[in-house]
Amino acid sequence: MEGNFSYHNPTKLYFGDDALKYLSEELPKYGPTVMLCYGGGSIKRNGIYDQVTQALKQAGKTLVEDGGVMPNPTVEKLYEGARMAREHNVDLILAVGGGSTIDYAKGVSVSAWCDGDPWQKYYVEQQEATGRVIPVGAVLTMVGTGSEMNGGSVITNRAVGMKIGKVFGPYAYPKFTLLNPRFTFTVPQYQMVAGFFDIMSHIMEQYFSGTDDNTSDYLAEGLMRSLIHSSRIAVRNPQDYEARSNIMWTATWALNTLLKCAKRQDWMVHMIGQAIGAHTDATHGMTLAAVSIPYYRFVSQFGVQKFARFARNVWGIRPEGKSEPQLAEEGIEALEAWMREIGVVMHAAELGVTAENIEAIADSTLIFDAGYHRLTRDEVVKILKESL
Amino acid sequence: MEGNFSYHNPTKLYFGDDALKYLSEELPKYGPTVMLCYGGGSIKRNGIYDQVTQALKQAGKTLVEDGGVMPNPTVEKLYEGARMAREHNVDLILAVGGGSTIDYAKGVSVSAWCDGDPWQKYYVEQQEATGRVIPVGAVLTMVGTGSEMNGGSVITNRAVGMKIGKVFGPYAYPKFTLLNPRFTFTVPQYQMVAGFFDIMSHIMEQYFSGTDDNTSDYLAEGLMRSLIHSSRIAVRNPQDYEARSNIMWTATWALNTLLKCAKRQDWMVHMIGQAIGAHTDATHGMTLAAVSIPYYRFVSQFGVQKFARFARNVWGIRPEGKSEPQLAEEGIEALEAWMREIGVVMHAAELGVTAENIEAIADSTLIFDAGYHRLTRDEVVKILKESL
Repeated sequence: MEGNFSYHNPTKLYFGDDALKYLSEELPKYGPTVMLCYGGGSIKRNGIYDQVTQALKQAGKTLVEDGGVMPNPTVEKLYEGARMAREHNVDLILAVGGGSTIDYAKGVSVSAWCDGDPWQKYYVEQQEATGRVIPVGAVLTMVGTGSEMNGGSVITNRAVGMKIGKVFGPYAYPKFTLLNPRFTFTVPQYQMVAGFFDIMSHIMEQYFSGTDDNTSDYLAEGLMRSLIHSSRIAVRNPQDYEARSNIMWTATWALNTLLKCAKRQDWMVHMIGQAIGAHTDATHGMTLAAVSIPYYRFVSQFGVQKFARFARNVWGIRPEGKSEPQLAEEGIEALEAWMREIGVVMHAAELGVTAENIEAIADSTLIFDAGYHRLTRDEVVKILKESL
Repeated sequence: MEGNFSYHNPTKLYFGDDALKYLSEELPKYGPTVMLCYGGGSIKRNGIYDQVTQALKQAGKTLVEDGGVMPNPTVEKLYEGARMAREHNVDLILAVGGGSTIDYAKGVSVSAWCDGDPWQKYYVEQQEATGRVIPVGAVLTMVGTGSEMNGGSVITNRAVGMKIGKVFGPYAYPKFTLLNPRFTFTVPQYQMVAGFFDIMSHIMEQYFSGTDDNTSDYLAEGLMRSLIHSSRIAVRNPQDYEARSNIMWTATWALNTLLKCAKRQDWMVHMIGQAIGAHTDATHGMTLAAVSIPYYRFVSQFGVQKFARFARNVWGIRPEGKSEPQLAEEGIEALEAWMREIGVVMHAAELGVTAENIEAIADSTLIFDAGYHRLTRDEVVKILKESL
């Protein structure tokens, strides 16, 4: 654990098939007006909407409805939600959905009383909120982003072709999140599997940096092994409670600020994936899947020791008689085989990436000093071409 | 993750060789009177006392001194500290030391304004605090117990031969803890190594239960692998910052409420070890070490699957051609070899356990439904005899 850091994660989690009942314990802690954020209406079909609004009613809350949060929440939607929250003087924002809905709710929480343009301040300039922040609570219905226990919030500005993530401090973390694995059972297989890969990607982005041997890397390996094990069960039987609950818990810990402690981190797969998302509106986890193998095949040469360790400790590949580059390649092959097994998108062409828009996607890719190698724009183009 | 649970751990951690400087950020959040708890005075010799009191002075705090906290804090000391905290109307209790000092500080924090006898209420009857609780902050100087980020507090009542742990809720967790690995460098090798085994024991107590395959077990395996790796470096070179910092971080996560999520847990090694401690005043981690091998050899027959997994996943033992009982035994042998390598006490006789006091120690051992098997009193006696 070289490097100094602080860790503070005050989000309270209720986990299990009875999680929603704790909403009634949490609601009295907040004022009378609750803004309910949700997506396209699946929560109305599967009964979660009714259970939540019933609890709000019993707690005597005034309900402000804010449905229609899209998979990649837009800056226009953010402005609209912020205006609504301010006009109704909302006391609590309750996000019911997956990462997009919770990301959006956090964005609204810091934007409602923001001086100036929140897109510019928080997302472009990466500033912290200084004024009033409306508390957020969450009911998680789709697994992947980890937004339920961190400060992350990704917003898309299609006018400028940018999808930018801001990581707010603990002041903007959800105060509480209710995690009922059964609420994730009705997620379509495509979205479920995209979520699984999103989790794996979060762990790998934090794992693939440094040659050090710190505790964070061992925790990351444990989470990857758990995910690989349970995902193989879940793709065959999405109703397997044990597998789905393990994955839900793994997702939370994959991106709740634990794994990054004392780590440099990478995040270039996310940068390229988010650029694809900004241009195509493709499902986040699938954009990551499509570029991961070309990206890791390229950068593994700069961090071969860690990729060899990945092969040994995550995939159980025996090292005897193999060079580190050989082991590194076998680890990437094992990752690729697992991706095919769970059924993620392996070609960016399936997501709307074409020879024509690759240059524009590369232009939208934020490039920084990452894990093992700072990509050039040409290398981003090369990786995108190989991902087709 | 079968089973419903909640997770809430609001302790803020500052980690690294600059951690103490954040004391100045935390102190202004509390009132003017600070009670400083510490042990036998080693912090005066190594300069930490001066650095802490300097920060208190700069923050304009009134200092209430409470030194002399013993390795197994007694109920008499608890009463004395509680009286002192109440009489001085203390606003913050700052514990500088290892687990004993922080355990004690938590005990004082809930006892100062307690109606009735705190020993009876909290430790014997295991009740929660209902009145005023004084906030606790901590500066960790010895690694092992995890007290820096949980609600645990163990107090010894020698008059009745009882050493009892109470796990308070998040209201009694330290508000903040400063973790500087360099502060642990001057701990004598015997205490250092006892701390290493205490960490391992905390993880094993939570790991050895259930036949399930949940994420907590994978996290536990990651932490054990990290500890084994770094402890081998640290016993040879206690000044190795990377190894000591990994171990410090592992200790915190080994017992900060993460690993127990959705787990039954065991804790019988701690129950027997604490009974030894109540009768001999031996170092906590060494009492655990002395009984672990006889205990695990006995109970592994009731949880052979998990012990076989322990062999494979923690110690890297190849399973080909071996039965599960064989694998389980090889895992315990690997544990034993590691214990000898780092130099813990392998015989309870070295700690003052004799053929004469074994019966009394067995009488002091709290027995409950634990991991794989509920021990009888006769089995406790048998394990103690084998531990001699």
